[in-house]
Amino acid sequence: MSDSKQQFVVLTGSLRKASFNAVIANSLAQLAPANSKVTQLGSIGDFPLYNQDLQEEQGFPDAVTEMAKAIAAADGVIIVSPEYNYSVPGVLKNALDWLSRVSPQPFAGKPVMITSASPGGIGGARMQYHLRQILVFFDAKVMNKPEAMIGQVASKVVDGQLVDEPTREFLQKQLLSFSVFAS
Amino acid sequence: MSDSKQQFVVLTGSLRKASFNAVIANSLAQLAPANSKVTQLGSIGDFPLYNQDLQEEQGFPDAVTEMAKAIAAADGVIIVSPEYNYSVPGVLKNALDWLSRVSPQPFAGKPVMITSASPGGIGGARMQYHLRQILVFFDAKVMNKPEAMIGQVASKVVDGQLVDEPTREFLQKQLLSFSVFAS
Amino acid sequence: MSDSKQQFVVLTGSLRKASFNAVIANSLAQLAPANSKVTQLGSIGDFPLYNQDLQEEQGFPDAVTEMAKAIAAADGVIIVSPEYNYSVPGVLKNALDWLSRVSPQPFAGKPVMITSASPGGIGGARMQYHLRQILVFFDAKVMNKPEAMIGQVASKVVDGQLVDEPTREFLQKQLLSFSVFAS
Amino acid sequence: MSDSKQQFVVLTGSLRKASFNAVIANSLAQLAPANSKVTQLGSIGDFPLYNQDLQEEQGFPDAVTEMAKAIAAADGVIIVSPEYNYSVPGVLKNALDWLSRVSPQPFAGKPVMITSASPGGIGGARMQYHLRQILVFFDAKVMNKPEAMIGQVASKVVDGQLVDEPTREFLQKQLLSFSVFAS
Repeated sequence: MSDSKQQFVVLTGSLRKASFNAVIANSLAQLAPANSKVTQLGSIGDFPLYNQDLQEEQGFPDAVTEMAKAIAAADGVIIVSPEYNYSVPGVLKNALDWLSRVSPQPFAGKPVMITSASPGGIGGARMQYHLRQILVFFDAKVMNKPEAMIGQVASKVVDGQLVDEPTREFLQKQLLSFSVFAS
Repeated sequence: MSDSKQQFVVLTGSLRKASFNAVIANSLAQLAPANSKVTQLGSIGDFPLYNQDLQEEQGFPDAVTEMAKAIAAADGVIIVSPEYNYSVPGVLKNALDWLSRVSPQPFAGKPVMITSASPGGIGGARMQYHLRQILVFFDAKVMNKPEAMIGQVASKVVDGQLVDEPTREFLQKQLLSFSVFAS
Repeated sequence: MSDSKQQFVVLTGSLRKASFNAVIANSLAQLAPANSKVTQLGSIGDFPLYNQDLQEEQGFPDAVTEMAKAIAAADGVIIVSPEYNYSVPGVLKNALDWLSRVSPQPFAGKPVMITSASPGGIGGARMQYHLRQILVFFDAKVMNKPEAMIGQVASKVVDGQLVDEPTREFLQKQLLSFSVFAS
Repeated sequence: MSDSKQQFVVLTGSLRKASFNAVIANSLAQLAPANSKVTQLGSIGDFPLYNQDLQEEQGFPDAVTEMAKAIAAADGVIIVSPEYNYSVPGVLKNALDWLSRVSPQPFAGKPVMITSASPGGIGGARMQYHLRQILVFFDAKVMNKPEAMIGQVASKVVDGQLVDEPTREFLQKQLLSFSVFAS
């Protein structure tokens, strides 16, 4: 019965249609263990720029409320994001800034797995450690290992599909660890 | 002659109208040394969420182009920002993500001073070190000291004015150091 | 029966005899919940400077082996350390570098609580986030909250005793959270 | 006349005799521009573990005093170090903790270049950003770019010599930039 499966939701940190990180995010449903179901969250491109005045005058935008609910209901959150300028993309941080204000804050105690990909060799490492510091504030339960920092990603994607077999196997292994971690 | 003054521009990291950091930002023009002129940059609230597709299809938004020009023309940039969730506000990072794509990139070699204020005791320190790492990518020339992390800011502002005398004196000192640093 | 108590061990990051952080470390046994026992680990001052050649030629120093055993046997590790120069003290990092080489690595999966104190207002925050990044490598299970960053510590200690009542209560609360976290 | 050359000193962060980072450090004298002279500083293995009591009772160890003098006299400092456990090696941080107490503090305003090498793909990046944060405290003038993070270093060294030609050329370029930066 599908209800008994672990429910994981994916938060993608790039708005670009052909984003390599979106390709990775989309590959996860296939690569996850059989006892889990992986669903993409809505686009963070639907969030306005965070402004406390806006929040107080108009309440939370629907896109924020819906994402917060989906995260709260999930057994774990998978964040897949590029690194922009040695840190977390502004668009992803903006989404987190909105979500941090929702009560109850949906990441509290929630298992989180982080994956990133980059055209160069570092694979988004600098983004990941900033994100981990941010998630201390959220009181999220972030998995330590294995860490997935996928370098040279352009060579691993063909026609919008992640085709590099070692990377696919690594992500399978990371998802399996996350399934155990989130149990 | 005013042309001979050092020209500093201020980038504010919060969109909230009554933002304490905006109060700090607005106080700087008064506190800066006589040989300098401090001007507020436009609002980062006018930047759309960064999306490379948008950039490629429509070019840079006017707000981005204008801010990039103003930064390029200045003798130094002062970033005044709150800390959101242990890091740089998403809205500020989003602005930096846009500016990083402008060519020539306006922060390259540019003197930068960082100031932050927070209601609690840490004064935005966590935001500042993330911002410093980001500015390595930009190849900005960030002043080390004095560092301004203004804690308990709510008690230092009355009617939208920074009234705390020790904080005003500290900022005068920081601005004077920056004037020398940027010379 | 004492065997049924949670066993916590304390790693102190300063070698100075009158260290404020050592005072904090020594106060924890009194402040911990009744179902726990808090024991000080040996001094990291007995570790030589880490050198892989030394490790290969002479094996692990006794002080390292003993500390690794004590950590492995404990239900949780409490790290109490000052901040030196915006990061982890070299002496503490040196101890961690030794411990990281012991097999099995004693911090793997181990609950960890972090406390720091400083004469100034920041309370060691910069040290703590560097330490958290290091502990990702160790695959330690680091408690997120409450975070204990004790500022103005000189005013809170009299005759080598932590006398500040709000700080004592805060540490009691942190230890209680850690007791639950480590269960 | 040699006196007119730029004088650079190299601080190496590993004590291991066959350290890859020591190989890199030793290669720099050959790779530096003709108008500069590169000298290795003494070993940080001669520093005791930092202890303020020791400093107050016995003064600074000779090894510390000598290194501080050499740094103060130089036109720039090159730090070459491995990454240990996602941060700065304890032995290097210990050396910096000692040097931070010398008055006048020798890194103040001093140009610094950072290079790191690692067996894996990240090349020491995590170490470098922690080191940069530390050097804010020292008020050092750290070069932003080019950043040298040398991955897969084992394949680039033969018989204790850096033989990989692209890496040699990259370091030449970094040293040339540093020569300009330090002028």
